[in-house]
Amino acid sequence: MTTKQLIDQIRKKQSFLCIGLDVDINKIPKHLLEEDDPIFAFNKAIIDATHHLCVAYKPNTAFYEAYGIKGWQALEKTINYLNENHPEIYTIADAKRGDIGNTSSMYAKAFFEDLGFDSVTVAPYMGKDSVEPFLAFQDKHTILLALTSNQGAFDFQTLSVNGQELYKEVLSISKSWKNSENLMYVVGATKAEFLADIRKIIPNSFLLVPGVGAQGGNLQDVCKYGMNDSVGLLINSSRGIIYASQNLDFAEAAAKKAEDLQSQMAVILSQ
Amino acid sequence: MTTKQLIDQIRKKQSFLCIGLDVDINKIPKHLLEEDDPIFAFNKAIIDATHHLCVAYKPNTAFYEAYGIKGWQALEKTINYLNENHPEIYTIADAKRGDIGNTSSMYAKAFFEDLGFDSVTVAPYMGKDSVEPFLAFQDKHTILLALTSNQGAFDFQTLSVNGQELYKEVLSISKSWKNSENLMYVVGATKAEFLADIRKIIPNSFLLVPGVGAQGGNLQDVCKYGMNDSVGLLINSSRGIIYASQNLDFAEAAAKKAEDLQSQMAVILSQ
Repeated sequence: MTTKQLIDQIRKKQSFLCIGLDVDINKIPKHLLEEDDPIFAFNKAIIDATHHLCVAYKPNTAFYEAYGIKGWQALEKTINYLNENHPEIYTIADAKRGDIGNTSSMYAKAFFEDLGFDSVTVAPYMGKDSVEPFLAFQDKHTILLALTSNQGAFDFQTLSVNGQELYKEVLSISKSWKNSENLMYVVGATKAEFLADIRKIIPNSFLLVPGVGAQGGNLQDVCKYGMNDSVGLLINSSRGIIYASQNLDFAEAAAKKAEDLQSQMAVILSQ
Repeated sequence: MTTKQLIDQIRKKQSFLCIGLDVDINKIPKHLLEEDDPIFAFNKAIIDATHHLCVAYKPNTAFYEAYGIKGWQALEKTINYLNENHPEIYTIADAKRGDIGNTSSMYAKAFFEDLGFDSVTVAPYMGKDSVEPFLAFQDKHTILLALTSNQGAFDFQTLSVNGQELYKEVLSISKSWKNSENLMYVVGATKAEFLADIRKIIPNSFLLVPGVGAQGGNLQDVCKYGMNDSVGLLINSSRGIIYASQNLDFAEAAAKKAEDLQSQMAVILSQ
């Protein structure tokens, strides 16, 4: 998907919501455990109920790998279901991969070509030649970890290097990489005030913002400091939406939570 | 596996060789493509021919994920084959994972419990709470990326923070994490001279050293600067061994290459 297609979808749906499909078999409604593939059954119901309210879905691969072959099959079924039934939806493999060049190429092929995701999250620690193989794919995005939403973000990401925090150095240096126009960045919402500084370095890039709601971030603040002329934001919510209810009405409850966020987004977009 | 069991194996086999099972279907002998599972058939032949010469095998997960479900099955069959037939061998899932706490727990469960690996490689960028869930597993090791062997290592890892390079800060800070005795570190062999400094920070930890041979590292130099009283080194070779020949004699040729390295290691261990 091109960035323009993503922006068009945002304008049309009046939403820049991304729903995180982090499916834990212990947290889904018990009646789904009787299904052949409970994880896919859960995802399908969530997607059917929420696809008009969000612009993106983001399965975190850890939750699928934890179930081995069956988990991997559920991931394949989920991305295939999205690509077949909702090709306008933007898809993110939250995989946080990154390796030496020829190995990163294998990951890029797996997520972009074989699974058919629009984007994948990548860790920056191994530098340019670990990220560029992902950037080489046309109309695909590489979402680089910059400032994450967890406490450990302050262990290394905010240390000072060359007169600025490491995550800002990651932003600055990555702009010089080949096909850097295919980059987006993960920026945690728990530090909304940092977004103003971040926008000075990367005014035009899309930011994937986790941690609104459950992890304490505030939607208004994130938009105030992070939004640009092309919106430039994908706000992710996972647990707050998909586990809104653990009963028969789980999909309906998820839609209600998604709608709450979408309405707030529509107001912000109309301002 | 405990660290002591690994050291005992090293002493017994007079080897600290790790063989990287980075299987690219385009590089394996053509006759194997007729097998039901060419990747596993290749790995099994390599393992059968080399298990007495090495102490560890390290499949890089990217090469398996690139083949989807079939790749994941080949990875499962490979680790099961190793655990059933060669339980004394140390196994490393070279996955370079790392995520927020509850997500890292899912990855740790996947690699340590479900797949049964002895260790997994983890990226440090997201800090303490992204690594500690891996460290919580008893008799399992978490191998943290410190200084990698690729060119991109110089993009961020060697930047100066708090008066020392970032990778040294990673080494220093990680020592304070809970269950840090379960840590090992990835240190690229292309910078053998850095090992003396590294040993000042982590004198006792095991180092996984990629890049001897193909990537230019020198075994003697690595041992001179990196070895400690408990050996403390696992030297990895992947392509140099497993693709020594692409003909019917590929396993024999791999064993010959592995034996070359093992003999050099035996000489070093006897000094």
